[in-house]
Amino acid sequence: MGPGVRRVSSLCPVTYDGAALRARLERAATTTATAGLDALLVSPGPDLRYLAGYDAVALERLTCLVVPATGAPVLVAPRLERAAALASPIGSLGLEVVTWDEHDDPYALTASLVPTARRVAVDDRMWAVKALALQAALPDATVSAAGVVLRELRMRKDAAEVEALRRAGEAIDRVHARVPEWLRPGRTERVVGRNIADAILAKKHAHVDFVIVGSGPNGASPHHELSDRVLQPGDAVVVDIGGAMPDGYCSDSTRTYSIGVPEPEFADAYAVLQAAQEAGCATAAPGVPCEEVDEAARRVMRDAGLGELFLHRTGHGIGLETHEDPYVVAGNILPLEPGMAFSIEPGFYRDGRHGARIEDIVVCTERGSERLNLTPRELVVLDV
Amino acid sequence: MGPGVRRVSSLCPVTYDGAALRARLERAATTTATAGLDALLVSPGPDLRYLAGYDAVALERLTCLVVPATGAPVLVAPRLERAAALASPIGSLGLEVVTWDEHDDPYALTASLVPTARRVAVDDRMWAVKALALQAALPDATVSAAGVVLRELRMRKDAAEVEALRRAGEAIDRVHARVPEWLRPGRTERVVGRNIADAILAKKHAHVDFVIVGSGPNGASPHHELSDRVLQPGDAVVVDIGGAMPDGYCSDSTRTYSIGVPEPEFADAYAVLQAAQEAGCATAAPGVPCEEVDEAARRVMRDAGLGELFLHRTGHGIGLETHEDPYVVAGNILPLEPGMAFSIEPGFYRDGRHGARIEDIVVCTERGSERLNLTPRELVVLDV
Repeated sequence: MGPGVRRVSSLCPVTYDGAALRARLERAATTTATAGLDALLVSPGPDLRYLAGYDAVALERLTCLVVPATGAPVLVAPRLERAAALASPIGSLGLEVVTWDEHDDPYALTASLVPTARRVAVDDRMWAVKALALQAALPDATVSAAGVVLRELRMRKDAAEVEALRRAGEAIDRVHARVPEWLRPGRTERVVGRNIADAILAKKHAHVDFVIVGSGPNGASPHHELSDRVLQPGDAVVVDIGGAMPDGYCSDSTRTYSIGVPEPEFADAYAVLQAAQEAGCATAAPGVPCEEVDEAARRVMRDAGLGELFLHRTGHGIGLETHEDPYVVAGNILPLEPGMAFSIEPGFYRDGRHGARIEDIVVCTERGSERLNLTPRELVVLDV
Repeated sequence: MGPGVRRVSSLCPVTYDGAALRARLERAATTTATAGLDALLVSPGPDLRYLAGYDAVALERLTCLVVPATGAPVLVAPRLERAAALASPIGSLGLEVVTWDEHDDPYALTASLVPTARRVAVDDRMWAVKALALQAALPDATVSAAGVVLRELRMRKDAAEVEALRRAGEAIDRVHARVPEWLRPGRTERVVGRNIADAILAKKHAHVDFVIVGSGPNGASPHHELSDRVLQPGDAVVVDIGGAMPDGYCSDSTRTYSIGVPEPEFADAYAVLQAAQEAGCATAAPGVPCEEVDEAARRVMRDAGLGELFLHRTGHGIGLETHEDPYVVAGNILPLEPGMAFSIEPGFYRDGRHGARIEDIVVCTERGSERLNLTPRELVVLDV
């Protein structure tokens, strides 16, 4: 087997809130003007989905939403995609769609829509070949990355987005609830991974984004995925899994399991880790800089002599992408605001021996923060 | 439901041929030098997989293979990804891996590996935000798109790649063989689409890339995907489906079905279409310009008065991407060579009424061409 629809959004249609999209487009224009930019150029990807609810596939033919600092947005699309674009909220929002034919130059067409632009920004994920072609078609303009503008919108989730992340969190929690059934000695990480991938889909995700089953020494590599290693009694197993729901919002949660009784040194470190994760979550609140959340978790590890084993930042924002702003990392002085959603996921990693990580998605609320993953965070000790 | 692993390559591990990868890296360097470039900078995506067998996920942390025109390639990777990179052919090829830590600047690090470069090229699909950051880190260099260099390699498939495309073709043929069971009056396009998506996975694809079920008037939009339209007796149904196998090679095949006896005008046009597709396939041979294949199919349609209804190019190359060079389109004078693989997929589209398309993947051989899709191309008339 090898489950996987990568990109067939029409298998699971989604309803969009036209008023919310309209407000986003307006805010995008305002923020563009404030940033001193003349226009945003947004190709298929999470930014386009966020702004206009159009979940198009990035292909070699240029599709590009032009959002000028002043004036109405216009979608440039291949004629072949016109019907699909109009069937998306692009149509119900009444946006103008300018189409191009197989032998037209879509970059010149796009440039002609912003003839006086001197500063434009392209979405962060636009293919380089397209960004370079737009730069060539706009020789008098400087091209920059739109992420710095769009993250100001995207990292502040509205109530509907928080609800979407809550549904994603519930969905992945249901998968974690079943993981103990599959973690049996004698099975391989890969076989367990397939059980998990199937369950992620069964629990209403539209696709699986990643499945990490790091058993024993493999747990010591934070980004290990799956191998043919056979699970053994005494293994600690890091299970870090996530996917995207049909509406595009992502799940991401890590729990650590022990197959049988863990060695005491592991159990002791795990207790510290749990306190560190708790400290990070307790610190997250409006006005608190992101780096303070990182430091709150890190301090607990450091005070217990485990600071060197915590190799990575504490977390990343999440929404229509698994990794987006805000990043919970030293140096990020951005103060949290209600609606910001991010992971809190400290870990420890002992090369050649074992690893552990605890990860929840957390959303900043008016008064503090709320965790969107609720499965128990204690080390799950499985009978063997 | 909503099947779909998007990106968990380790669910279905793949074996790579080290000698073939080594030869590709050497040819990439030679071609880079010939193009007057100093280095290629290749981020996770099909180019990286092609050159080094490293099927990494594109995330915000920079991973970048530096292929200098002279000298050994080097992989820049986040420290967290080092183990994963070394577990890929990057390790067995003995490539140097230079890692960066959470607070390092990976763009400055990459630039430091090509200190005298004046012309570099980034892979076509590199995220714009990364390409722009590399440009900023290399202020004395011009940045262009590497596709023009890498397509010279990628569009000429070796025997193992042709075999991989043949397996993908067989897999999607097995799905088409089952489509008639699902196309029953009273069922919706979306429900049929789910059957097909499940079957694409069951037939050993690692993921589904697209599922088009265009029934009745929906068939007149070439890129229609799925809707809740209920299939009716008399409908023509365009079914265009594809996915990627665990080794990354893609399938893509279209057949057109009729639910019950079609209207005569449709049946007549379909007969012409079949002759057009046949003419395109018969023309494909070494030395024949791509545009002649397009013209061979188009001429048959035009001669029957259907030229205006054939809205799109005749085909696209296929390999590690569903759409890649060479494109079978007017204006592309590139002569075909053995190993080039591409679709031949003429169609006709009558707005508000119906559409039809026949698509095979074809590979140019030493003496002519071979079709990799073998299900019957006659209109499949289903009993109702």
